[in-house]
Amino acid sequence: MKSVSVSDSDGHAFTPLVAIELAEDIKEEAASWLMNKIKDKQQRGGADLLVDQLSQEGQSDQKGNPNIFIVGATWLRLLHGAEEVGLVKEFGDGSMRGFTYANKDSFKSFEGDGDGFLSIAECQYIIKHELDTLRAKDETQVPGYTQMKLYPGKSIIRRMQSKGILLQIFPLHVKENLKRLSLSWYGKVKLSHQPLDDIRQYFGESLALYFGFLEYFTFALVPMAFLGIPYYLFDWESYDKYVVFAVFNLVWSTVILEVWKRRSASLAYGWGTLSRKKAFEEPRPGFHGTLGLNPVTGREEPVFPYARRQLRMYLVSVPFVLLCLYLSLHVMMVYFDMEVLGSGAARRGAHGLDRPAALHPQHHLRGGHRENHRLESSHQNHLILKVLVFNFLNCFASLFYIAFVMQDIVLLRQSLATLLITSQILNQIMEAFLPYWLQKRRNKKVHTRNRRTMGDQELPLGEQVRLEADMNTYLGTFDDYLELFLLFGYVSLFSCVYPLAALLVVLNNVTEVYSDALKMCQVFKRPFSEPAADIGVWQLAFETMSVISVVTNCALIGMSPHTKAYFPESETQLILVVVAVEHVLLAFKFFLAFVIPDIPKPIQIKLARLEFQSLEALKKRKMLEAAAGIPSKS
Amino acid sequence: MKSVSVSDSDGHAFTPLVAIELAEDIKEEAASWLMNKIKDKQQRGGADLLVDQLSQEGQSDQKGNPNIFIVGATWLRLLHGAEEVGLVKEFGDGSMRGFTYANKDSFKSFEGDGDGFLSIAECQYIIKHELDTLRAKDETQVPGYTQMKLYPGKSIIRRMQSKGILLQIFPLHVKENLKRLSLSWYGKVKLSHQPLDDIRQYFGESLALYFGFLEYFTFALVPMAFLGIPYYLFDWESYDKYVVFAVFNLVWSTVILEVWKRRSASLAYGWGTLSRKKAFEEPRPGFHGTLGLNPVTGREEPVFPYARRQLRMYLVSVPFVLLCLYLSLHVMMVYFDMEVLGSGAARRGAHGLDRPAALHPQHHLRGGHRENHRLESSHQNHLILKVLVFNFLNCFASLFYIAFVMQDIVLLRQSLATLLITSQILNQIMEAFLPYWLQKRRNKKVHTRNRRTMGDQELPLGEQVRLEADMNTYLGTFDDYLELFLLFGYVSLFSCVYPLAALLVVLNNVTEVYSDALKMCQVFKRPFSEPAADIGVWQLAFETMSVISVVTNCALIGMSPHTKAYFPESETQLILVVVAVEHVLLAFKFFLAFVIPDIPKPIQIKLARLEFQSLEALKKRKMLEAAAGIPSKS
Repeated sequence: MKSVSVSDSDGHAFTPLVAIELAEDIKEEAASWLMNKIKDKQQRGGADLLVDQLSQEGQSDQKGNPNIFIVGATWLRLLHGAEEVGLVKEFGDGSMRGFTYANKDSFKSFEGDGDGFLSIAECQYIIKHELDTLRAKDETQVPGYTQMKLYPGKSIIRRMQSKGILLQIFPLHVKENLKRLSLSWYGKVKLSHQPLDDIRQYFGESLALYFGFLEYFTFALVPMAFLGIPYYLFDWESYDKYVVFAVFNLVWSTVILEVWKRRSASLAYGWGTLSRKKAFEEPRPGFHGTLGLNPVTGREEPVFPYARRQLRMYLVSVPFVLLCLYLSLHVMMVYFDMEVLGSGAARRGAHGLDRPAALHPQHHLRGGHRENHRLESSHQNHLILKVLVFNFLNCFASLFYIAFVMQDIVLLRQSLATLLITSQILNQIMEAFLPYWLQKRRNKKVHTRNRRTMGDQELPLGEQVRLEADMNTYLGTFDDYLELFLLFGYVSLFSCVYPLAALLVVLNNVTEVYSDALKMCQVFKRPFSEPAADIGVWQLAFETMSVISVVTNCALIGMSPHTKAYFPESETQLILVVVAVEHVLLAFKFFLAFVIPDIPKPIQIKLARLEFQSLEALKKRKMLEAAAGIPSKS
Repeated sequence: MKSVSVSDSDGHAFTPLVAIELAEDIKEEAASWLMNKIKDKQQRGGADLLVDQLSQEGQSDQKGNPNIFIVGATWLRLLHGAEEVGLVKEFGDGSMRGFTYANKDSFKSFEGDGDGFLSIAECQYIIKHELDTLRAKDETQVPGYTQMKLYPGKSIIRRMQSKGILLQIFPLHVKENLKRLSLSWYGKVKLSHQPLDDIRQYFGESLALYFGFLEYFTFALVPMAFLGIPYYLFDWESYDKYVVFAVFNLVWSTVILEVWKRRSASLAYGWGTLSRKKAFEEPRPGFHGTLGLNPVTGREEPVFPYARRQLRMYLVSVPFVLLCLYLSLHVMMVYFDMEVLGSGAARRGAHGLDRPAALHPQHHLRGGHRENHRLESSHQNHLILKVLVFNFLNCFASLFYIAFVMQDIVLLRQSLATLLITSQILNQIMEAFLPYWLQKRRNKKVHTRNRRTMGDQELPLGEQVRLEADMNTYLGTFDDYLELFLLFGYVSLFSCVYPLAALLVVLNNVTEVYSDALKMCQVFKRPFSEPAADIGVWQLAFETMSVISVVTNCALIGMSPHTKAYFPESETQLILVVVAVEHVLLAFKFFLAFVIPDIPKPIQIKLARLEFQSLEALKKRKMLEAAAGIPSKS
């Protein structure tokens, strides 16, 4: 554990875990009401956590926000919290089970008072959960602010955040652990795997799965990359060779996506997220509804009618998305028409890069919370799906135009190469190295200022927290996955015209690992860990891309002059053959996906065993109840 | 309960439930060893059931087999058995839970000593299960037969059956219940639904789901049938009208298959089979392996390495199936070639009916048990898949030939009509009415013989059992589903050339309900009930058929002269448009299937609640164990 500690108003020392920043001009009564809520016992509707206001001492200039609070908790509280959020841990017998406090000594790595049993990221996740579920009961407003209405079941933190008097909540870095992690992760150039378990310990499952997928994806592309090299070097342009490459490509991409499912299930099982049940998850903080009983768990929480959510989805979101899609395609067509009119011949190199800005509704979509999904996961998935469709069109519409309307394979190859190389360099500079350099400069300023007063010590807690509070917020894995998704598109959609793409993507990914790791450790504020059992809707997105790539590759092969030479008299016959081959490939793809089981057999058995033992325990419990004459309740 | 009862050798009266017929010439010691095994207490490796040899009294001629035994059990034994096989029943709070004896009074319809709580079909199922799981422990052979080797874990019944000294085991009809069921089922012509719950009570879930599907399928076809009538009456042959019909047809067939999943989930939930877990099922009797521990339940049962089963499947079964497929296609092509040579023009009406017999490997496949699947369900599914492929080719190859090679739409329409009408009439006569009439005649003979000696009473038990023993055995729902599957193929594959097909199929199905019901009640020996939560691999088969029908319909529309008239100059463009439309339809199909949830929301909630309560109970139990200092075992 970290050595730094602070004390709350009653003098209890505690490890600082999470920081809350309130608005500088917040009314005194609102701030102290919130702090009391956080400190209050759970029976009285509080969160039973420890809080301390960050001291202003050692602050050279007095410009810093005085309203930063540090939240922590006792070990006992955290262990109870772990049970509440349903953390799954390794049991003494090697199986994964929901943690229970009463049972704590039977869990594998539980020793003494449980210090070190929960990782810091888990502690922070628990505290975030407790803060998020601070819900109003009989209060009707935030004290001091008559316009901030509360109703039973409304998340207090959420209301204060949306009204702007609570600026942010973020978990604190632990310098010592961070140093150790970054050293093993990107500190030295090496060929070994990433330390996924350490990443998960520090940043949580969702990010660890992203890095796991990035690594897996890179290794999976290596065979395709090697196969692509001779095509480039020897300028093989014969029909059969391209067909062989394309077919290998299609089968390979199906296999790697199926195998990834198995690998992610193994990882998630070991991390305890595979056995955590979605239906028992707490609703996400932004979920609103009236306070009621959850039909599954029987716990009190906000409820929102299922039918109403469906109605909103189909009557509002779907038509809106379709409209945007239509407009965006329309703008794109106008743009292309203008371009063709203006330039005549269109052989101008990096064509795809200056693609039309089109309508960019993702920011609108990201902001809209009208569908009111209950779970964070399904909220994310619906959001991603909507934004994906636009990004797909934005990135690939121009390439599709070149490939299938202009039918200019040389230009297509040039565009692909330029896109891959420039986007690789630009992305990594804009995304990681530039922000890293800026952040470094800012850090140095704070450090030199401090060194003047305090010598060569570590930064004091106050300075450190303020430094982190000013860092940019990491907005989640969306943009990182999107980048991989588009790269996958470049590799698979046109693989038969540009076999070198896989090699470029492999090179890109190798540097991507380093730049993303740097970004997470040095540039952004530490994100809260998010439990995840798989990569969610991205799996579907990658699979859809690989289905689309069957169609595009078949079409490209059908269009090539080499293929046309095989059917000199009849174009009709050529098309029929291509369509037949495409159907066979698609059928084979679905067959493969159906045959490869999604979860490895040993883990299936472990999951089934847990389920069996649970059902047996339920029977036993009902028996005991029946024997004791307790009436059963639903 | 039934009023007839027999007594075992100790004088306990019991209801006759199941009959065992041994070979007439079986050695005395083997027969008595088996009966002792059945009667023996469970601790000593027996089944703890009641047995009585069927008396020969009242037998007018002495030709009957004397070795028929009647098996029954005490209520207590049956209730314990219900717990063992994992029957799921409605709990006091309306949820479905695994039955436990200790807890019996909390279940909804449990009254007094539990008489009537289990249906006769369930009792018979329990007894069959107990008999099937009579496994050898230290015996090395069947007494009296040195060549009938036994090894620990081998099913005794199975070994005796495969060696031919045990002829059959079958459940007995209950005349009174059967009369009531048949009256409400097919006794009167009416427009109401079938009594599915009663069918399930009498014949079990698997058959009830078949009749449920048959009924659902018929109702689902009604809109298509009505839409088809004007096409027939007014001879609409215009392009747009056929396209409209085909598109409606494709979307409709997707929707009805998805909705059926939801309906079957509802039915299976109410019958308690949806919550029964596959992984906890007992292995099927034919499953062989060495005695070991089930990794999930920890129970002692035969185990067989997973990898070895996979190996057998991929190295033996798959190549064999592919070889048969190749040969069968080859024979078919030769046949067609000869026919074309022989006849010149081929407009000869009922063309499809005299289809080549081809190779019929299903009997071989049905017999082969090399893959050694652990569960009855997965055994069935693999079998069905293999046989289906052959039947599909056998039935539709000639139609495909007429449609796409000969391109003779008029002949296709004629073949379809002839096939549908003749197969409907022939099938129902051959399958139900002829056997019914034969059975009726046999019954009458027995009755008149008895009436001579006993007057107008019910048949004595001995006569009745011998009568049932001589009836044909119902071989499972395979042939019935296959018939529906082929009909579905006729309706959907060529819907746009013969819109009347749906109407013919609806008419067929209406009579099919009656003939199948008659067959089950009067012609065949009563089958053992089989728990089923869905229609298994048939769902996949129907869905695959509906995907194939998108392809065939698009192709048929593309080939029609009306469509060709729209693209007078370019055949290429026509094909491209058709292919594009086909892809859009396929994508829409998959989207629809993805969007419609397979299990209705209320049942999802109920299942999740059970899971949640189980996990909670497991936590509590581990807590109690921890408190009591019991070491946890896996």
